[in-house]
Amino acid sequence: MAQLIDGKAIAARVRAEVQVEVARLKADRGLIPGLAVVRVGEDPASKIYVTGKKKAAEEVGFRSWEHHFDASISQDELLAQVRRLNDASAVHGILVQLPLPKHIDAELIISTVKPEKDVDGFHPISAGNLSLGRPGLRPCTPAGVMRLLEEVGCNPSGKRAVVVGRSNIVGKPMALMLLQKDATVTICHRKSDLPREVAQADILVVAVGVPELIQGDWIKPGAVVIDVGMNRKADGKLVGDVAFQAASQRASAITPVPGGVGPMTIAMLMRNTLLAATGGV
Amino acid sequence: MAQLIDGKAIAARVRAEVQVEVARLKADRGLIPGLAVVRVGEDPASKIYVTGKKKAAEEVGFRSWEHHFDASISQDELLAQVRRLNDASAVHGILVQLPLPKHIDAELIISTVKPEKDVDGFHPISAGNLSLGRPGLRPCTPAGVMRLLEEVGCNPSGKRAVVVGRSNIVGKPMALMLLQKDATVTICHRKSDLPREVAQADILVVAVGVPELIQGDWIKPGAVVIDVGMNRKADGKLVGDVAFQAASQRASAITPVPGGVGPMTIAMLMRNTLLAATGGV
Repeated sequence: MAQLIDGKAIAARVRAEVQVEVARLKADRGLIPGLAVVRVGEDPASKIYVTGKKKAAEEVGFRSWEHHFDASISQDELLAQVRRLNDASAVHGILVQLPLPKHIDAELIISTVKPEKDVDGFHPISAGNLSLGRPGLRPCTPAGVMRLLEEVGCNPSGKRAVVVGRSNIVGKPMALMLLQKDATVTICHRKSDLPREVAQADILVVAVGVPELIQGDWIKPGAVVIDVGMNRKADGKLVGDVAFQAASQRASAITPVPGGVGPMTIAMLMRNTLLAATGGV
Repeated sequence: MAQLIDGKAIAARVRAEVQVEVARLKADRGLIPGLAVVRVGEDPASKIYVTGKKKAAEEVGFRSWEHHFDASISQDELLAQVRRLNDASAVHGILVQLPLPKHIDAELIISTVKPEKDVDGFHPISAGNLSLGRPGLRPCTPAGVMRLLEEVGCNPSGKRAVVVGRSNIVGKPMALMLLQKDATVTICHRKSDLPREVAQADILVVAVGVPELIQGDWIKPGAVVIDVGMNRKADGKLVGDVAFQAASQRASAITPVPGGVGPMTIAMLMRNTLLAATGGV
């Protein structure tokens, strides 16, 4: 049976590390990192996410603000609000909770956040810095996966890493981060022969949002399996993108869903905000 | 025997297309695209490259300027010169020929070029736009490879593409462009098991600068092989990164060296300058 990768415990450790550093920053420099979260409209999931982020921020000792706007806010007004946060010296990180209402160009809003405050790592400059191997703020979920690998002693160097999914927020940055750590990286998607590709993965990261797409017997014996998916089945049960039971018979280590990658995203957001506050990227 | 991919002829066609569009722009809008090339010091290879770029620019009907500075120019002065070109309305494309002298931070210079004028596609915003699948100026060499594939009727969708080399100017953007065209993409480097990876490539792109590193019998029968390498052997002969003779026994199509990818780089630079002038990216 595979080792369970306890994302909840590792995320708690990351947050505790951030908390220690925040206390030191306060004591040494009187500096309190600040995270501003922008939320538009009444999407219930967004409300839950934002509440979780604000709570985590307060627990590590940050200042945090939620800026909530009505769904009818104009694009110009939202841009003006983002610019105001760009200029606010107490605000070190700005997070615009997605999705935004349809009349607002989300790409434009994200590109308007100052790259130094782009704690989501979604700005084109952040994506470019990652691709070019330059310092910069990295997207939280793939950064969290890298930390999980580190924690289970899995060094990607020389290994075959297979990333299933090519989104801008997980798949592509994930592939670039694994490449930077000297893995041989394959990026797969709906046109790929998944059983063939998955069978060659020493490290498998799946982020597609299709319940149990990856069958257990596709997995290479001994692989480290990271499941970014989080899907609710008809019976209400939460499952990942990997058929967990069968996969855990073959993998050497695997993330559960929930309690694997999920908790890491908020933890890495805390870390990014700390880095943004200290200019430590 | 593999079909030879005639990069020289295809590049000439791209330049002819640009020339037609330039003539139309002049006639319709009185607009003449302008390319400014910045060269620092006396690197002999740089001098040859810049001369070639200027000549190509004039042939397609662009305005072009070479700004040559002494190797002793300060970083601040070079930055000021780049900013001047950023502000010059007749200049639509700015190319800073690399390498720059050691006392100058090349990354800083490249990041100072206005992204809209970044015809080399090396600015972090250009790299980010590519990674995110947004419109933007793309690096010339991988863009040229995509055009070669198109010209030989090779559609990457659903194919396995293997990129050997992970540089910022070829390997990484190449992988992202092939991914965008729905290939399953593997990126390899010195830690990779090359024979194993190469054997799985329907499309193989090699850009490492090691003479004849890729052996012919590694290649999958029927593969399309694109050799970005250009190396001079002890006997003075130019060879690519692929052992051409043996590879052409197995590939369905292959680029020669010279005369394959090389001519495409300048042709795509012309195309980028045209795009920059018309805002057509």
